[in-house]
Amino acid sequence: MSTAQSDTRLALAAEAQDLLFREARTANTFTDEPVTDEQFREIYELAKYAPTSMNQQPLRIVLVRTPEARGRLVTHMLDNNKPKTATAPLTAILAADLNFHDHLPTVFPHAPDAKDYFADPEVRAHSARFNALIQVGYFILGIRAAGLAAGPMNGFDAAGVDRDFFPAGDLASLVVVNIGKPGPDAWFPRSPRLTYDQVVTVV
Amino acid sequence: MSTAQSDTRLALAAEAQDLLFREARTANTFTDEPVTDEQFREIYELAKYAPTSMNQQPLRIVLVRTPEARGRLVTHMLDNNKPKTATAPLTAILAADLNFHDHLPTVFPHAPDAKDYFADPEVRAHSARFNALIQVGYFILGIRAAGLAAGPMNGFDAAGVDRDFFPAGDLASLVVVNIGKPGPDAWFPRSPRLTYDQVVTVV
Repeated sequence: MSTAQSDTRLALAAEAQDLLFREARTANTFTDEPVTDEQFREIYELAKYAPTSMNQQPLRIVLVRTPEARGRLVTHMLDNNKPKTATAPLTAILAADLNFHDHLPTVFPHAPDAKDYFADPEVRAHSARFNALIQVGYFILGIRAAGLAAGPMNGFDAAGVDRDFFPAGDLASLVVVNIGKPGPDAWFPRSPRLTYDQVVTVV
Repeated sequence: MSTAQSDTRLALAAEAQDLLFREARTANTFTDEPVTDEQFREIYELAKYAPTSMNQQPLRIVLVRTPEARGRLVTHMLDNNKPKTATAPLTAILAADLNFHDHLPTVFPHAPDAKDYFADPEVRAHSARFNALIQVGYFILGIRAAGLAAGPMNGFDAAGVDRDFFPAGDLASLVVVNIGKPGPDAWFPRSPRLTYDQVVTVV
């Protein structure tokens, strides 16, 4: 497949490197084994600990369970994302809470005026999306930590999803992710990664 | 400290849960033990495998090594972030490459026209920031995978950093992260996380 080999110089054990990074792949097909709410709760109770700026935690997650809701979601997906979103064991909408600041007095108690920094809706929306996207990274790895494959997608009509699922205008959808055990021919060969020298510079 | 206990129902081993999520904390002080370029390369060679949309990989990383460069970076940090940024063993600027699309013919070879989807600079900048922020999440966990503590910050003048470090206008700074072994009193008590029911809904 590639030259991926676990790195024994890292503190993270080889098996965990493989589970989260080296052998994990974006899945495009899934078995019909269900993913339960209890499994998703375990993922949340792990990934929630990873940091956000001022502990903002703006990520919100909608588990799309009913056939009716799934049908609505599928209408907003790009064509190549429709079949897998229609059939995955679990599909989640990952979204940013544009009113995350309401929780700051509780989640960031040592700065009692933190909520006021986000009085401007534009500043607030920027911070909500910024930190929620970082949390998307954590949650994709959290799904893998549960032994499941993630199939994250941003090929969908986000404005349509927001109108349909978040009519109050308080949430902004970012990524839709299919979750389950990988099925037959679940992935393409891995595409190349940029080299260290293409990504990292030293000044 | 908290009720954090490793979850034996997850596929990820308890030690790895602790290393990456449950016991890891955002560090505000560091020992003077150096972080080498070789260590950073190991982090890159792990975290690079986590997925981005169309394998865009827009994250770019600047390791700030010289006293001159560090001095310039510190001038752009908010006051409370200056001392730790001045003294951390390694400080990195995580940025989005606004011209990531130049690599698409190589990194996403099965869609030869993928580069053309990003001809519009506004569309391209949006996608660059979107995917690079998800990669920021992967890299924060990658730093932890190396047994190091991360101190990510977005309290800085991003426009000032961009003018100073990226005068060609091709990169947009997102997060500055201090990296090293945690020093004395490296962190505050952990602030509360939102509950599962505050974050996850089912439809």
